[in-house]
This record gives sequence, structure tokens and C-alpha cells, in this order.
Amino acid sequence: MTKRSFQTIGLIGKSGDSSIADTVQRLAAHLLDRGCQVLLDEDTASNLPKSSLPVVNRATLSSRCDLTIIIGGDGTLLQAARTLSDGHSALVGINLGRLGFLVDISHDTMLETMDSLLAGNYVEDPRFLLHCRIIRNGEDINDSIVLNDVAIHKWNVARMIELETYINGHFVSLSRSDGLVISTPTGSTAYALSAGGPILHPALDAIALVPLCPHTMTNRPIVIPGTDRIEVVIRSQHQVRVTCDGQASHEVMCDDRVVITKMKRPLRLIHPLTHNHFDTLRVKLHWAESPQNTRR
Amino acid sequence: MTKRSFQTIGLIGKSGDSSIADTVQRLAAHLLDRGCQVLLDEDTASNLPKSSLPVVNRATLSSRCDLTIIIGGDGTLLQAARTLSDGHSALVGINLGRLGFLVDISHDTMLETMDSLLAGNYVEDPRFLLHCRIIRNGEDINDSIVLNDVAIHKWNVARMIELETYINGHFVSLSRSDGLVISTPTGSTAYALSAGGPILHPALDAIALVPLCPHTMTNRPIVIPGTDRIEVVIRSQHQVRVTCDGQASHEVMCDDRVVITKMKRPLRLIHPLTHNHFDTLRVKLHWAESPQNTRR
Amino acid sequence: MTKRSFQTIGLIGKSGDSSIADTVQRLAAHLLDRGCQVLLDEDTASNLPKSSLPVVNRATLSSRCDLTIIIGGDGTLLQAARTLSDGHSALVGINLGRLGFLVDISHDTMLETMDSLLAGNYVEDPRFLLHCRIIRNGEDINDSIVLNDVAIHKWNVARMIELETYINGHFVSLSRSDGLVISTPTGSTAYALSAGGPILHPALDAIALVPLCPHTMTNRPIVIPGTDRIEVVIRSQHQVRVTCDGQASHEVMCDDRVVITKMKRPLRLIHPLTHNHFDTLRVKLHWAESPQNTRR
Amino acid sequence: MTKRSFQTIGLIGKSGDSSIADTVQRLAAHLLDRGCQVLLDEDTASNLPKSSLPVVNRATLSSRCDLTIIIGGDGTLLQAARTLSDGHSALVGINLGRLGFLVDISHDTMLETMDSLLAGNYVEDPRFLLHCRIIRNGEDINDSIVLNDVAIHKWNVARMIELETYINGHFVSLSRSDGLVISTPTGSTAYALSAGGPILHPALDAIALVPLCPHTMTNRPIVIPGTDRIEVVIRSQHQVRVTCDGQASHEVMCDDRVVITKMKRPLRLIHPLTHNHFDTLRVKLHWAESPQNTRR
Repeated sequence: MTKRSFQTIGLIGKSGDSSIADTVQRLAAHLLDRGCQVLLDEDTASNLPKSSLPVVNRATLSSRCDLTIIIGGDGTLLQAARTLSDGHSALVGINLGRLGFLVDISHDTMLETMDSLLAGNYVEDPRFLLHCRIIRNGEDINDSIVLNDVAIHKWNVARMIELETYINGHFVSLSRSDGLVISTPTGSTAYALSAGGPILHPALDAIALVPLCPHTMTNRPIVIPGTDRIEVVIRSQHQVRVTCDGQASHEVMCDDRVVITKMKRPLRLIHPLTHNHFDTLRVKLHWAESPQNTRR
Repeated sequence: MTKRSFQTIGLIGKSGDSSIADTVQRLAAHLLDRGCQVLLDEDTASNLPKSSLPVVNRATLSSRCDLTIIIGGDGTLLQAARTLSDGHSALVGINLGRLGFLVDISHDTMLETMDSLLAGNYVEDPRFLLHCRIIRNGEDINDSIVLNDVAIHKWNVARMIELETYINGHFVSLSRSDGLVISTPTGSTAYALSAGGPILHPALDAIALVPLCPHTMTNRPIVIPGTDRIEVVIRSQHQVRVTCDGQASHEVMCDDRVVITKMKRPLRLIHPLTHNHFDTLRVKLHWAESPQNTRR
Repeated sequence: MTKRSFQTIGLIGKSGDSSIADTVQRLAAHLLDRGCQVLLDEDTASNLPKSSLPVVNRATLSSRCDLTIIIGGDGTLLQAARTLSDGHSALVGINLGRLGFLVDISHDTMLETMDSLLAGNYVEDPRFLLHCRIIRNGEDINDSIVLNDVAIHKWNVARMIELETYINGHFVSLSRSDGLVISTPTGSTAYALSAGGPILHPALDAIALVPLCPHTMTNRPIVIPGTDRIEVVIRSQHQVRVTCDGQASHEVMCDDRVVITKMKRPLRLIHPLTHNHFDTLRVKLHWAESPQNTRR
Repeated sequence: MTKRSFQTIGLIGKSGDSSIADTVQRLAAHLLDRGCQVLLDEDTASNLPKSSLPVVNRATLSSRCDLTIIIGGDGTLLQAARTLSDGHSALVGINLGRLGFLVDISHDTMLETMDSLLAGNYVEDPRFLLHCRIIRNGEDINDSIVLNDVAIHKWNVARMIELETYINGHFVSLSRSDGLVISTPTGSTAYALSAGGPILHPALDAIALVPLCPHTMTNRPIVIPGTDRIEVVIRSQHQVRVTCDGQASHEVMCDDRVVITKMKRPLRLIHPLTHNHFDTLRVKLHWAESPQNTRR
């Protein structure tokens, strides 16, 4: 019997979506049939009342699995990534119909693709994570891990907010805007893109700082090395929030400091050998389909 | 006697500008007085008919100097950088009144600043260069070195041109536009910025691909690792040109390939210890002047 | 005795700013000396405890004055404009040091300039206003008048909101974004500009619809005739707000309709004869200073 | 027998495209069958050697037809519009497969649609034209009519050009850029959109000035009343060209003046009653497809 690339496999389905039950069951049966051990995520289990798979919490999933399969969209993988970041599990995403930037395996061919991955036919696509700390009066009041972005933005207020940005301790600018998105390459096709930021290739060790509707038109997106330490000081009396990956939101006050640094260990995203990021971009962004034939 | 950081110093002045004669003479006298050997660039010498400094061509300047001082604007330094790239000379720029992104030493304080640099009080700011080759029917027809950018753009034609882009041999897109700017971090505040590109920090090992007026609105600026190999195939029958650093322009034809890779050896730009790139950005782009006092 | 262009003049100062007391007093004394009747705004009076000028509320000011002078910034004039829109008073703005788009008379020369305006040396610069109604289940729940813009935007939520836009009853788009700014020409240099909108000349009878960080990159700013009827239907369950001129904010719910139409009567802004909108743009946006001399 | 809305109908096909012969023949036969007189454009006739239709030049077409049908793409209609602008013929466009902004009648349903138009079921969509004059030393050296845009742009030169803009004789700005696009609402979805300009509704009496890669980032698109007189003075010694509708290009020199004003008589574009410009925008720009059902 050949050794599988992955022996213990976790399954996480789109939260609150009961229509995925069938897909999860078929996938689990297939993996069991291939000799893998399969663990089901606690939240996902609530959508599969009849399943007899062992159910574990996220921490156990993270520590025991060497691969976690996400069934859903990019948002599902994003949420999973943040909760699995302290384990060693690789991640792979199966989309439910529409290609995602992260969940790139089609639902229609998932069984064949899984066989191929188990046979070792895959590429690793490490994606770095950011560590976001909120500091008030010298003390950490919040600690988050993000895969896409940290958005520091106005909350229930109509006026612009003032943010002071430092990079490696050096003053960069005092800006008035709706906020600032600090994005990884992974997040560069999400909120940062809507705000006018560039597309960063996932292999790039870089962070983009993209202002949201800046008052000063020359406040353009900046891209800095991924090893730089970013510190943003809130300078508004208004309500400001820090939102991580568009999912978890924390209130901040004037003089609070948001410190963002790269995590040492990246997320290990897995793709079939045929994967190329530019192919995904081309489909998702409706670019021209194919190269021209040289003989025209 | 203390050892100077730099012993042999070349001087290059803004081309065709006779008003710099005085500045060059004062600078040369000061450096000779400090025990340096001073060599004058051939082109620059034509603006200083009364000078008794030894005059050398660019190749000799490049091989013999350990520091070359540029007196002029960013364009002067840009032009010098390309001709000095095979030597080992460090470069430093003195501006004639207006701060540049590259020429950051003020004319008013140049003598004091030079003393400080000679005493070893400086930082090195390595800037990578790009190698741009134009290939026709498998043969190299042009070879250029650039510090800022390669622009592949329509020439005497009003219509859009078609370009096919490959990164590390992988097809990226077939685009219709006025052209494409491939920019280093150094060039990111030049043409690429006018075209809507992001600001890349000079320490970033990255290249930006910025389309010029693209037909497809989702053709946005892309930033890729500096180690990537970029290949652009001309797909237009129209006239297209490849312009390097906005200075040298080469005609290309349909099916010609423009191959761009990073040079191994960077340009060694020198700054006073007080230099910080964000301070320059803040002044040049009219950002808010100073951080707020925490106690308000 | 010559007839003054304006006989009854109202004075409105920047809200909550006691430093304007002197300026208001000097201005009032000067106008009284010129034979005008001067009325002081109620709110402003609280900053001038020693003034003996007649104090009236905004409604009286609006009905009795033929000119109202605003002392402050663009925000002060904006706030005044909305409260004076049912009267016939013309408006003129005196800035406290920094040129505004609307308050263009310098504090330093205000007395001479007022004399000139009183002598009939002025231009009228009519600025149209928008009427913004919020409709829930067929009933109007809010009614606002705006000079700059109506922003329909996400409130205390990190996710995008969905808005359905109709123009003259015809479906335009269903968009996902941070919101939508509907702007007059006057507002086109305010929030809409930060969001990437075009600059509309004040004489243009047009309204700009500018999306805030739209999910779809082809959702670009649209400019339509000022006579068009805009209707935006809220399609998000999340919290959404409608903010008028960046000052007054109203909560809206899913299926609420925001209907925006041009007001019949414009605001009558007054300028010295030397005023030109492009001169103001050039100063405020740091454009090149002056035309070249043809003989170079 | 009922009176036809249009009695004499001209036919213009895409230039140099012999594949349209069939379509033109079927269309002509159908119109003759309906009792119309059909005239064939001279250029188009060269692609239909077997046709027995009367062939006339563009001037005759323009003076005798009350409707001209364009078979091709937007570029074909654009070219026709400029040559027919002095006549009274209405225009309608049949696309050869892909919906255009201007040619909106599908090839598949063209016969039914033509019957409907002949029966009077159509809307007129007047599109204003611009008159572009190039003046050298006080004398007109060129005269053009445009439907989309006038682009004043650098020609065979890699550097930026300098342009001085006046509106109604008032100085607006001296700008450095790759050029300037002066666009009608019709042209706002063409070159101006690629350059970052707003979408102007065709019913809007307005002209957009959109800079091409401006050196100064605050040089943003400006929209002015259609009745304004635009004058652009060339301030570069470099080669500059003026290109009309992306089709005809004229060389200009330093100090030449380009004067642009609205033509009195608009182009009369014809559409089926179901036409709405926003429907076209939605399809062409890939916006969200349909409004949501209120009951969700």
C-alpha cells in the first residue's frame, strides 16, 4: 500500500449552509475509502445531523490534521485560515460552483482531484499571515491573525478620520480619509482592490497600504516589504474600528495604536499541479482569454 | 590623516547646462582640498572650459571612481546610472534647488554634506536595475539597462496596441491599451505613478506592471517578485516602441519579444544618515507635514 | 444717497468658534456704517456675548435678509445653505485664512470687498440643491435639502452593502460597495472627489453618481442630467445610513427607497467680479500656477 | 398604403469587410420589398460586386437619405457619422454579433426591427458633435467634426507634453502629461473611459476633459457645459498630434491652438423603442444583471 501524502484530513463546510451536507458526505466516504482518517469540524457537524464521522473542535482539527479541506467560498477558507493558523495542517478549498481566488477545486471534479492530491500531485502555495495588535495605554487589548487584510476605518460616523502611520518607527503620514486597508498579497484582490490598490502576486513578500477615499489625492497605495513593522495611531475622537479579514471588528479610541507585523509561519495552501495564479486572475477579472497564435 | 570613505570622485553635471559650472568648480575645489582625486565627466567638461580637472569618458569614470557625484535633477542621475552600471562607483545626487526622489542633497549645504559623507556618515540605498532585451526571430536586437522603467507603448499611431504578457513563461494576459510600463521601485514614483500605479518602497524586491489606458478596466497594476522573468510579445501591426527610462527609444515590430529581468548588481545610491524615503515622499507629494502631538 | 445692492444683511459665524467674535464685530460695524441693517444669527450670537446687534433665528434670517454673510469655512457655508434654502437671501463667504471652494473672500480684505459688493460689483453663481427623501413602505420618513451630496453608505458594519439604482424609473444597476455618493457640481470637489469622481463645473446642470469602493471594477462614476430623478433602493439587511452634506445622518432599512431630485430654486452664491472657479481649483488642487509666456 | 417613417435609405457597411455582403443584400431586398428606395455607399459597393443597387458617394447619401443604416461596429458608425454630419439623415446601427454602444440592433433580428422602425416605432437619441479647429499663427489649418473625442497627445516622443487649457477664454491649467482627451458623452465610454474619465449620459449637454497619465496627480477629469469653448495651446517643442475619433490624426506644433466647440446640429441616432442606454452599459461593462425581487 502506498503512503498517502495526507493521512488525517479535516472537513470544514460553509457555515450555516445545510445544502453542503451531501458534498461533505460524498467527500468523507471517498476519503475513508482511500484509507484516510476523517475528522469533522464542530460547526459543520451541526449541518450534518446523520453523519457518523468523529466531530472535533477547531483546536483539535488544527493539531491533528495534516490537511483540512474547506467546502465553500473564499470567505469560508478565510475564516478557517484564521482559526487553524497555529497548527500544521495544509489547507485546500473546494468551491460550490464559482471559482474563488482561494477555493480553486471544482465541486464537479473534487473526487478525482482529491485522489491526485493524495498521490502527492500538488503544489504548496504558502501565504503569509499578519499579526494585528491593538495597544491602548501601552497594553495589548486585542490580538488577531489575518490572511487578507486589516481595515482601520470610520465606524458610525459620517466624517473622515485621522490616522498617523509609521513604518519601522519612521513617520510616514498623517492622513484624513475613510480609513486605511493594510493588505497581504492574498488580500490584494479583495477589499484593497475595490479601494484602488494594486494586485500583488501571492509569492511576493510585501504588504500594501491602501487608503479609503483619502482627502489628499496624492495619498496613493504604497507597497512595502513584508518584514516591515506597521504602526497606525488613531488620531480621531470619532468612532473608529479595526476590522480583520472583513469578519471580526474591534472598537478603537483616539491614541490607540494598531501594530501589524508578519507572522513567522505561513498558511500552507495546497493546489493541483495545474494551478497558476494568473489563470485565476484572468477568469475572475474577465481578462482576455488566450494568447494569440503567432501565425496569424 | 584619517582614511576617506571615498578617494577618487567623479563629477557629472546636468547635460547642456552651463549654469552649473560654478557649483562644479566649488565642489571640485572642496574635494581636492580634502585630499580626494577628482575626475570630470567628458560631457560635463564642455560646460566648464576653464577647468583644469582631468577629463575622462564615462567608462573610465565608471572604472576608476569609488563615488560619482551627480549635479542636476533626477533625470541627470537616471542617465548617469545607466552608463555607470558596470563599474563599482557609488552615486550621490546634488539637486539644484528642488528636492528630487534621487538627488536629495541640497545645493546650499553640499560642502558640509560632502564632508560628512567622506567621514563615513552615510547610508547605502541599493537600487536594483532591470535588463531589457528586445528579441526578433530569436536574435537579440537591443540590450538596455534601466533604473526606472521600460515602457512598451504605441508610437506614431492613434489606435490601441495589443500586448501579450508572460511571467516566468506563464501566460498572463492579452491586453489592448496605449502600452505597458514595467517599473522598478525606483521608477514607481515616475511614469508608473502617472499611469495609476502604486508607490513601491525602494527596499522592496518587486516589479510593477502598470497598463497605460487599458481597454479592459479590470487590467489593473500588478506587482510581482523582482526575481520574475517578464516577457511581452508585441501583437500589433502598428508602430510600437520600447522606451527605457524615458530616454532611449527603440522601434519594435509585431511578434518581437521584450524580455525583462533583474540585473545581479544593484546601483549603490548614497544618502546622508538623516535620509528617509518617506520624508522625501511627503515633501514631493504634498502629504500632511508632521505627526500630531499625542497630548492635544 | 445711492441705493445699496443689499440692505438687510445677516451674519453667521462658524459654530462654536469664539475667535471669530472680533471679525464679526468689525464686519457688523462696517456694514452699519454703510447704512445696512445687520441681523445676527442666534447660534453665532452665543459667541458674541457683548454684541448689541439684533439676534434672530435662522428662519427669520432667511426671510428678512437679502444677503447673508458666512464667516468660517466651506462647512459653515454648507450648513447655512441648507437652513436658508427656503428664503431669498444671497450668500457670500469670508474665509478665516484658507481659501475655500465656497468661502472665497479673504478675511484680510473683507471690508474693501464688502464695499465693492454693496456697490453692485459682484457676480451671481447659482448652485442647485438636491431634495433627498427617504421612503419606507410608501411613506416619507425623512426629507433633506443638500448642497454638496447625499451619501448612502454602510454604517456600523464591515461588509459591503447592496444598492439598486434607478434613473427616471429605469433600472441602472445592482451594486455591491461601501456605498454611493450622489453629488451636485458643488459637491464634486468634496467627498465625491476623494471617491474618484470627476470635477463638475458649477454651471453644469448635472449630478454625479460615484460608487464607494465598488466590488465590480467597472462600476465607474456616472454623470447624468440634473433634471433626472434618482432612486436608490436599499437591498442590504445590514445597517445602512444616508448622510446629507456630511452633516446629518439618517438610518435606513432594507427595501427603503432614497429618492433624489433637483430643487427648483438654486442657492444664490455671490462672488467678487474677479472670481473664477478654475482659479480656485488651481490653488486648492496645486495645479501649475500660470500660463506660459508665448515668447520663450 | 401607409406612409413609411423613412422613404430613402442609405446603406453603409464596415469598410473592407466582404463578409457583410450577404447581410447588406438581405437588408436591401427587404427594404425594397417594403417600398423604400435604397442607396448604396460607394466604399461599401466595392464589397458587393454583384449588387444592382444605385451607388452614390457619401455627400449624395447624406443629402438624399432620410435614414442611413450602418452595418458593422461602433467604429463604422463613428466614421460614417463624421461624413454625414452636414445632411439630415438619421442613423441606425446593426451590429454583426456583438452589441455596441452605438450599433445596438442585432443582426439576427434586423428585418423585424427594420419593419418596426419603418412603422414609426423608434426613439430619437440626438448626439451632439464637436467642431475641432487647429489654428496656427491666427489661421485655421485644419477643421474636423467628431462624435466621440479629440485627443491631443504626444506622438513619436517618449517625454510628456505641455498643454495650456482655456475655457471660455479663462486660463484653467498648464499641464504635463501624455495628452488630453476632450470627449462628448458619446465618447465617454471610449478612450476617455480607459483614461479614467466618468461615464456621461448621452442626454447630458456636457464635455469631459480627461488627462492622459498626468504628471500632477490632482489633474483629474473635469466636466464642463457643452456650450463652453475649449482652447488648448500646445506648449511643447516635441511632436504632438491631434486625433479625431481615433481615426484622423493631424500634426501640430508649439504655439498651435486647438479650439473645440459644439456643433449646432446633432447627429440623429435612431433606436428601437425598447432601447435604454443603461441596459447597454450593463451588458457592455458586465454590471450585475437584474434588480432583486423585493420579496426575498
